Amino acid sequence: MAERLREEKVFKDPVHRYIHVRDQLIWDLIGASEFQRLRRIRQLGTSYVTFHGAEHSRFNHSLGVYEIMRRILGQFGRRLSFSFSEEERLLCLSAALLHDIGHGPYSHSFEKVFHTEHEEWTRRILVGNTQVNKILRSVSDDFPWKVAAVIGKTYENPLVTSLISSQIDADRMDYLLRDTYYTGTNYGFFDMERILRVLRPLEDKVVVKHTGMHAVEDYIVARYQMYWQVYFHRVTRSAEVILRKIFERARDLYRAGYTFNWRPAHFIPLFEQNITLEEYLALDEPTVMFYMNEWCREKDEILCDLSQRFMNRRLFKYVEYGEKVGSVEWKREVDELFRSVGIDPTYYLGVDSPSDLPYDVYRSGDDGDRTPIYLLMPDGKLEELSRRSVIVESISGKRRYDHKLYYPLDLLDDGTRDPNTVREIKRRLRVHQ
Amino acid sequence: MAERLREEKVFKDPVHRYIHVRDQLIWDLIGASEFQRLRRIRQLGTSYVTFHGAEHSRFNHSLGVYEIMRRILGQFGRRLSFSFSEEERLLCLSAALLHDIGHGPYSHSFEKVFHTEHEEWTRRILVGNTQVNKILRSVSDDFPWKVAAVIGKTYENPLVTSLISSQIDADRMDYLLRDTYYTGTNYGFFDMERILRVLRPLEDKVVVKHTGMHAVEDYIVARYQMYWQVYFHRVTRSAEVILRKIFERARDLYRAGYTFNWRPAHFIPLFEQNITLEEYLALDEPTVMFYMNEWCREKDEILCDLSQRFMNRRLFKYVEYGEKVGSVEWKREVDELFRSVGIDPTYYLGVDSPSDLPYDVYRSGDDGDRTPIYLLMPDGKLEELSRRSVIVESISGKRRYDHKLYYPLDLLDDGTRDPNTVREIKRRLRVHQ
Amino acid sequence: MAERLREEKVFKDPVHRYIHVRDQLIWDLIGASEFQRLRRIRQLGTSYVTFHGAEHSRFNHSLGVYEIMRRILGQFGRRLSFSFSEEERLLCLSAALLHDIGHGPYSHSFEKVFHTEHEEWTRRILVGNTQVNKILRSVSDDFPWKVAAVIGKTYENPLVTSLISSQIDADRMDYLLRDTYYTGTNYGFFDMERILRVLRPLEDKVVVKHTGMHAVEDYIVARYQMYWQVYFHRVTRSAEVILRKIFERARDLYRAGYTFNWRPAHFIPLFEQNITLEEYLALDEPTVMFYMNEWCREKDEILCDLSQRFMNRRLFKYVEYGEKVGSVEWKREVDELFRSVGIDPTYYLGVDSPSDLPYDVYRSGDDGDRTPIYLLMPDGKLEELSRRSVIVESISGKRRYDHKLYYPLDLLDDGTRDPNTVREIKRRLRVHQ
Amino acid sequence: MAERLREEKVFKDPVHRYIHVRDQLIWDLIGASEFQRLRRIRQLGTSYVTFHGAEHSRFNHSLGVYEIMRRILGQFGRRLSFSFSEEERLLCLSAALLHDIGHGPYSHSFEKVFHTEHEEWTRRILVGNTQVNKILRSVSDDFPWKVAAVIGKTYENPLVTSLISSQIDADRMDYLLRDTYYTGTNYGFFDMERILRVLRPLEDKVVVKHTGMHAVEDYIVARYQMYWQVYFHRVTRSAEVILRKIFERARDLYRAGYTFNWRPAHFIPLFEQNITLEEYLALDEPTVMFYMNEWCREKDEILCDLSQRFMNRRLFKYVEYGEKVGSVEWKREVDELFRSVGIDPTYYLGVDSPSDLPYDVYRSGDDGDRTPIYLLMPDGKLEELSRRSVIVESISGKRRYDHKLYYPLDLLDDGTRDPNTVREIKRRLRVHQ
Repeated sequence: MAERLREEKVFKDPVHRYIHVRDQLIWDLIGASEFQRLRRIRQLGTSYVTFHGAEHSRFNHSLGVYEIMRRILGQFGRRLSFSFSEEERLLCLSAALLHDIGHGPYSHSFEKVFHTEHEEWTRRILVGNTQVNKILRSVSDDFPWKVAAVIGKTYENPLVTSLISSQIDADRMDYLLRDTYYTGTNYGFFDMERILRVLRPLEDKVVVKHTGMHAVEDYIVARYQMYWQVYFHRVTRSAEVILRKIFERARDLYRAGYTFNWRPAHFIPLFEQNITLEEYLALDEPTVMFYMNEWCREKDEILCDLSQRFMNRRLFKYVEYGEKVGSVEWKREVDELFRSVGIDPTYYLGVDSPSDLPYDVYRSGDDGDRTPIYLLMPDGKLEELSRRSVIVESISGKRRYDHKLYYPLDLLDDGTRDPNTVREIKRRLRVHQ
Repeated sequence: MAERLREEKVFKDPVHRYIHVRDQLIWDLIGASEFQRLRRIRQLGTSYVTFHGAEHSRFNHSLGVYEIMRRILGQFGRRLSFSFSEEERLLCLSAALLHDIGHGPYSHSFEKVFHTEHEEWTRRILVGNTQVNKILRSVSDDFPWKVAAVIGKTYENPLVTSLISSQIDADRMDYLLRDTYYTGTNYGFFDMERILRVLRPLEDKVVVKHTGMHAVEDYIVARYQMYWQVYFHRVTRSAEVILRKIFERARDLYRAGYTFNWRPAHFIPLFEQNITLEEYLALDEPTVMFYMNEWCREKDEILCDLSQRFMNRRLFKYVEYGEKVGSVEWKREVDELFRSVGIDPTYYLGVDSPSDLPYDVYRSGDDGDRTPIYLLMPDGKLEELSRRSVIVESISGKRRYDHKLYYPLDLLDDGTRDPNTVREIKRRLRVHQ
Repeated sequence: MAERLREEKVFKDPVHRYIHVRDQLIWDLIGASEFQRLRRIRQLGTSYVTFHGAEHSRFNHSLGVYEIMRRILGQFGRRLSFSFSEEERLLCLSAALLHDIGHGPYSHSFEKVFHTEHEEWTRRILVGNTQVNKILRSVSDDFPWKVAAVIGKTYENPLVTSLISSQIDADRMDYLLRDTYYTGTNYGFFDMERILRVLRPLEDKVVVKHTGMHAVEDYIVARYQMYWQVYFHRVTRSAEVILRKIFERARDLYRAGYTFNWRPAHFIPLFEQNITLEEYLALDEPTVMFYMNEWCREKDEILCDLSQRFMNRRLFKYVEYGEKVGSVEWKREVDELFRSVGIDPTYYLGVDSPSDLPYDVYRSGDDGDRTPIYLLMPDGKLEELSRRSVIVESISGKRRYDHKLYYPLDLLDDGTRDPNTVREIKRRLRVHQ
Repeated sequence: MAERLREEKVFKDPVHRYIHVRDQLIWDLIGASEFQRLRRIRQLGTSYVTFHGAEHSRFNHSLGVYEIMRRILGQFGRRLSFSFSEEERLLCLSAALLHDIGHGPYSHSFEKVFHTEHEEWTRRILVGNTQVNKILRSVSDDFPWKVAAVIGKTYENPLVTSLISSQIDADRMDYLLRDTYYTGTNYGFFDMERILRVLRPLEDKVVVKHTGMHAVEDYIVARYQMYWQVYFHRVTRSAEVILRKIFERARDLYRAGYTFNWRPAHFIPLFEQNITLEEYLALDEPTVMFYMNEWCREKDEILCDLSQRFMNRRLFKYVEYGEKVGSVEWKREVDELFRSVGIDPTYYLGVDSPSDLPYDVYRSGDDGDRTPIYLLMPDGKLEELSRRSVIVESISGKRRYDHKLYYPLDLLDDGTRDPNTVREIKRRLRVHQ
């Protein structure tokens, strides 16, 4: 079943040094056009606006997750004499490699505006009429469905699932290290090698040998820091807000029968909420960028202005939203004030409210469907991590929000608006001048 | 003249840790649309095909060159009490930042096929009707011309020029370190901090204090290694060859009156060799990718096949070209054999012959217009580097070539060709089976 | 007053890359014999037993603290236009360089057994008849006293003091990074450059610009991790316990009139609690090692056995001490049992109870005399760190203890003891077999 | 024969991240007192005087060589299905671990003055009455002799020998990386992982797959740089010269019947050239330091002065020796001039002439008994490295010397000497003032 390559293939990787491929299956999957397409989708969406180094693709990250999985299985075999069946071994590796294959360009904004879900597209790519599907079926007819089940967390052996998506999995370990490397920040760094050595497969889950507690603590803090220092960076989010507004404006214009200079052929199926798998796969970041470039020259002032802002990093400012400012009433008044100085709040006022639950003990909520981390104590019993670590306990189960309202300060100051109203707007937005 | 920012701006950079901006001029240049455009052009063109980490942009590199220049000037000031006039200080910084601004997408292939020159476009961007030009003129009316002169190596003060383009300059130092970092190889690493400390401005050039000789040796070897290990990697070049063939095919089709599914509007000015500055600036990698994606569905088989090869990394194989194989006669015969099995050699046989002159003493030839590196000896005299270093001497003045002929092995093996001719072709191409 | 060196001196340092010396005063202090002596005292005492890389000296660390201080002052000057008087500048640098000069060999064990205090010896070296004192007096007659006051935290300007000893100071920043580097662990790593950029001198203390909160969080967690992962490592502490027992045994033998093979001349003033400055300075690690080597051949079995254990890493095992085991009564019984199988508990049972207070808000207790860390908020107000950071809050003010009882398992198992008693001892010590 | 540990032991190592021990034999050897003694001997002798970070011990390095050997064998097994017999596997590992076990303190100076040879002591420790010997004999009676044969390069299977001592072996790879890490220089860095992947056992030697040529080039240049930048650093050599003079003076005094304050018991067997294995093993760096400390207080002025110089880094200056200065005649005159101002040239003038042969093709000379490096070409033939690499060719077979004469400039300037003679001496020594 599992054909080995005559000679191991090796990729040079800045994060894991080398990525090793020994199975024909994996080699073929990497060559599939749906996988190569991940080269054209950046791992961190708009983060490059803030951290110019963060230009790495999901292709990059997917190889990394695969490599970590390969090393975990190697450790299990070499040190613990534990091994999966040959099919489950390939399942682990394929699921690791393909877990993000459904992602589109700038997923975060894209999905919010167009109501697509990358998880759903992942499933469709795996089981639909694709190169990836054909390759997976070389293992067995139901293999694509099994890979989809693992990624969708419904696979029968939860041990396999937990290696890819739990609170300490191959996916998270790779993205923390990789995003740290490319952004040049150090927050996401932790001793992965140590963690790999203390992971233990135990019935239906992976647990951590108690001597590794501090290494895992370090990993949890690394993840926490990356969320607040990198992923939720206020400047990145300003770019995200603008991107969403661009997509909304283009969609609204299309629906209103507006004639574009350059017909947005690739976007129309999205605007009409009627997109095929083939059309979805044709949507990558260069395509979005191509239209954005054109939109910089559109006659519609709003679409044109927003696109130029995005391309040339002329971003929105923000005000913290929530304590004294931020009620529905307050927002309605600000909207009105914007309208009265000729700025459409639909496209020029954007609320962004990311939140993160850095670690959770219970199986509830969106992130909460990840099992907690258990320490394997010397006496053979399991103890949940946050009961031993005050640091983890301090951030456990606490969802933290960050609400911000983004707005174009430069427009207010362009000299064409009524000074009194502008002053009033600024007072409400707490602009210090 | 040189307005300082109220508060220093800082970019996080994985290579230099932080990039510091203190001048309003530099801040404004970074925000110019022509500079932001460099975010959409990768530093290493097709190298990402071989080294998946190498997805960084010229924006990235340009900031790095600027930062190195800033540090060189800082060292000169702090340690040597040497400083340029305020205008020349800004000139150094601006030229460092903008030295690559004329680059287009995949310059290497692009320029070969379309006979454009990024140096010429740099000049046109600096002195033409652009945001960059407007910002530069805020210093003085002839400042854009001065920046162009520095980059073009015709500026009156050769000391300024040599900081940006000599055999040891801010440009080279940044790209070696940066390309090493992103590819994950270690070949390009050297101790830049040490080199910065031993650089000495001396009349019309920058020399190196003799105690730094081994550090400079290390830099020269690093550069040499990067050329042969990374820049001229055989797999990258295969992608380059295919890219050139794609451009050639598209151009030939256009000229032949072929009707494209999707009219290649952005390419037509190039095909007609009649491209304006604005049209040139609209050409970035996403645009090329956009068309390439479309060409994957073109009815012309050659354009379609080549585009799919490029997108999905189905590359050409190669044969070393030059010793026993490779004469004009030999090539003509191989062309004929290809034709006889129905493969057009114009688009399916590509010769690639990069060469490098790692270090040169004399002022002749293309790279040779870079002054040699001088060591400042204890007695105050200058000695040319290769006279003191056997390692540098060993590679000095020796241009090394690498000729390869690229061809599609899979096409020959697709089962539709005459087996005898295919066997004969393989014999000539020395395919081991 | 402050003579500058004609040419800056530079030390290559693996942690800070380069250490720069520009003042004659600093250069002279580094050359003083009392400072060179720090080359012969390891930074981490017995940690090398656990982490073989940790062989670096206090000389190493002292240079590092100096360099960080130099960079802090540089940042203050360049970015904030804040500068100390020339005398206080030298005071900062000298105090940073000399803050550990009173340390003896294996201070931790040494001070416990012989009741010396390195802080007191630091003071005596600074103001006594030493080379360091002579050099410091070249600044002004009372300069040595001022340096002593800064190190002793009694200097009149608390801003100066806080740069060297507060909860985020040059000393801590260097040792975390340095000990991390040499041990090869990653726990102590944090982004020092970022922290230096957000430090702000504000009246009598150094505060942190609010944008640096997460970087400081990272530093606090790094420190916390290093304490539990490195400094309090159970194996290191086993070596510490043995070392203390050796010193105690040698002292007790001396007091009992025992005749040593090799008269412990250098230790006698300590044994007699009557040691001069010159005698103290002659005590370095090689001296201790020299005697330890000799003691490996002493006829007294206990001194000989303990010394061989230390030299050849034949360490004690431990039992967690405190929950069910560990009462005074329990300990008395274990002592008795040891005695009954012929092992003297005075020298073969050692309790070790390190504790750490990772961060504290109040000015009480031993570590608590360090001021809390304040964030400088956008509105100009100060907020104490743990009020903004849940992570810091979680470890703030909580002193954590770790009690262990160390004992020689191999002695119990040497086959010469009564098996029933040994079994009983093991049961009490919870030895799993 | 080869008992495996129940659980793998792991050492944290800054260079190789982790060092893995799975064999009881290796674990026992590491615990042997002769091996633990290597903790008390620095890897780079006096280099710490120049590079303060270089305080790491031979213990450190020996573990590293062992780990590289373990990885080489792992690669051979996993990738090439090549394996040694179980005995030869242990032989490789043991020889790697123990190859430096005969080293004494400051070997370089020590061996020159006292005519000891660490290779000979290695042999004696392996086959003599030692713990190491006893442990090795647990494999087989002649196993210690086999280990000695491998280290002495007389073992019957040259493949085994070449893994430990050839021009690219586990020893060299470790010391380059390790010394680079601890000094903080970057010169010795190369991509070891890559090299391990291209090593191929081929009959009686290890060859390099041709694709690894540039990685090996990098390694050769790294080695070359380390010799001239670190190992032969002029300041380190000044300390070496002084150390030799101290040893010579102490020996000469002893022979002349001088009465030392503190009888140099540990040195006397050396002075009398009649030293036993036990006495040799008792000589470590702390012992040498202990006496040096005492000698700083000796009444003999020369011994006292030289010792203080060494301890407090008051070093000699140097003059390049060889071009215009340096003939026998010239030296005799300088000696005479020194004598005439009351400075004994025997102890105050020292010539130091290290040389290095960075790579050699032939089997002649001291370093030359190392086989050249062969590349395994695609056609299965071997080609010697320097025939393919111009860089290696440039330094191949060229022994480079560096002669320097060291002298105490400060003594000449102490104001007690005849000014005219001093002026004449300085003229001859080319002192620039």
